Amino acid sequence: MACNRREMLGVLGGLLVGGALGPTVGKAVAAPFAQPAKPFGWTAHTLDPAAGAKTAYDGYWFHEYGCCYGAFYAIIGTMAEKFGAPYNQFPFSMMEVGKSGISEWGTICGALLGVASAYALFWGRKERNPMVSELFRWYEQTAFPQYDPGEAAQGVKGALPTSKSDSVLCHISVSRWCYTSKLAQSSKERSERCSRVTADVAAKGIAILNAKIAGAFTATGKSEAVAFCGECHDKGKQADNMKGAMDCTPCHSGSEHVQNKFKNHP
Amino acid sequence: MACNRREMLGVLGGLLVGGALGPTVGKAVAAPFAQPAKPFGWTAHTLDPAAGAKTAYDGYWFHEYGCCYGAFYAIIGTMAEKFGAPYNQFPFSMMEVGKSGISEWGTICGALLGVASAYALFWGRKERNPMVSELFRWYEQTAFPQYDPGEAAQGVKGALPTSKSDSVLCHISVSRWCYTSKLAQSSKERSERCSRVTADVAAKGIAILNAKIAGAFTATGKSEAVAFCGECHDKGKQADNMKGAMDCTPCHSGSEHVQNKFKNHP
Repeated sequence: MACNRREMLGVLGGLLVGGALGPTVGKAVAAPFAQPAKPFGWTAHTLDPAAGAKTAYDGYWFHEYGCCYGAFYAIIGTMAEKFGAPYNQFPFSMMEVGKSGISEWGTICGALLGVASAYALFWGRKERNPMVSELFRWYEQTAFPQYDPGEAAQGVKGALPTSKSDSVLCHISVSRWCYTSKLAQSSKERSERCSRVTADVAAKGIAILNAKIAGAFTATGKSEAVAFCGECHDKGKQADNMKGAMDCTPCHSGSEHVQNKFKNHP
Repeated sequence: MACNRREMLGVLGGLLVGGALGPTVGKAVAAPFAQPAKPFGWTAHTLDPAAGAKTAYDGYWFHEYGCCYGAFYAIIGTMAEKFGAPYNQFPFSMMEVGKSGISEWGTICGALLGVASAYALFWGRKERNPMVSELFRWYEQTAFPQYDPGEAAQGVKGALPTSKSDSVLCHISVSRWCYTSKLAQSSKERSERCSRVTADVAAKGIAILNAKIAGAFTATGKSEAVAFCGECHDKGKQADNMKGAMDCTPCHSGSEHVQNKFKNHP
């Protein structure tokens, strides 16, 4: 759907008054969906992945806002601290939304949502989706956590057990780590693990951001399982009934974890 | 972690300059995580659920920004159109992030993310989590879509098949609808279905918002399966290794859908 004339005037009005610094204050807009901010209009800056990892880690613990806030702040907050507006206009605590997979529901890993949301301030879906896929695919395949804050640890110091989740979902990522490590979900070690995963995701997210800015970003593509299942389930194929790009194996390979747990569960 | 003195000064400075209208323009902050916007500092306004449903529906189709943008805009965009700042300072296109479960990955239903994100502009996790849980639980149990745009339909006019997803995940919600309706994931009908789900979620999200503002919000609690499995897997119980509140049945009841699809798959 294209912009109509009134919407266009609304957008232009906002740009003239707010300019590159962002939105107009105190004026309601005339037409639906015509808001002052230019779509995907912020400028991305190259950042230091190592510094971002530390910021993400500390952000996780800041008021316990959690993973999504930490990862997002490592990108947009760092730009806000360096450059001010429009970055510092963002209502940062909103990003607590992703904590524990959105309000403890265990859906998307909040650190991944934080980075994807940061990208969405700069790039529309055509450019952003491959970047997000690169990050998500890397997350599925990586044994976490890798980051070690050393003496600056805010939960538990020292090395932690690692596990590969095969999934971008908080529920699977955390539960698999607990199952493997035999450490409790409600333990301090688990919080520490997630704060370190937040650092890992922010560092990788910044590396992808930097590559994109430098014109050097390339995507690696689908997981083996998603490509295999897509042979029948992709768009236009014989069973075009599947939405998503999450790796299929955790839920569709008949493992012991997905058998009937309501009957004869050990 | 409490605010240190420098952070506190940074926050106060921002408030003095930006006041209730929001962030300061053009100034970088002195201390980490000290940004001008007051945490969860926006004021929530009562909205009309029916008008919100229509806005959400139209928002879904606006530049095809999708479900998350549509549901979020129905709340925050409506406030921006009515009241201007701080609501109209939000970079709305960022909410495209949730489209198709985040960049086509099929994780959280974007409409749910949109409403949860809107709540996070007003309330911290202690108050917000029960509201989000109420919305998510309702979503799991509801046969979608219910909304019908009539002649104003932008994809396909007329009644559509409905299905209950038992899940807040886009992958399960969409795939189950396709499986039940025998309509393709890449069909216009599926897009229409999701735009109507966006309207349904926005209307319910606004009803919860209104109840919260009126002091009349009450939460219904966990799903039967989550409560049952929690008897052993909750915090402090014998197998404290589970994160999340998504209904357990879609993936842990041994259905045909979670058996080994890589061997002898029909």
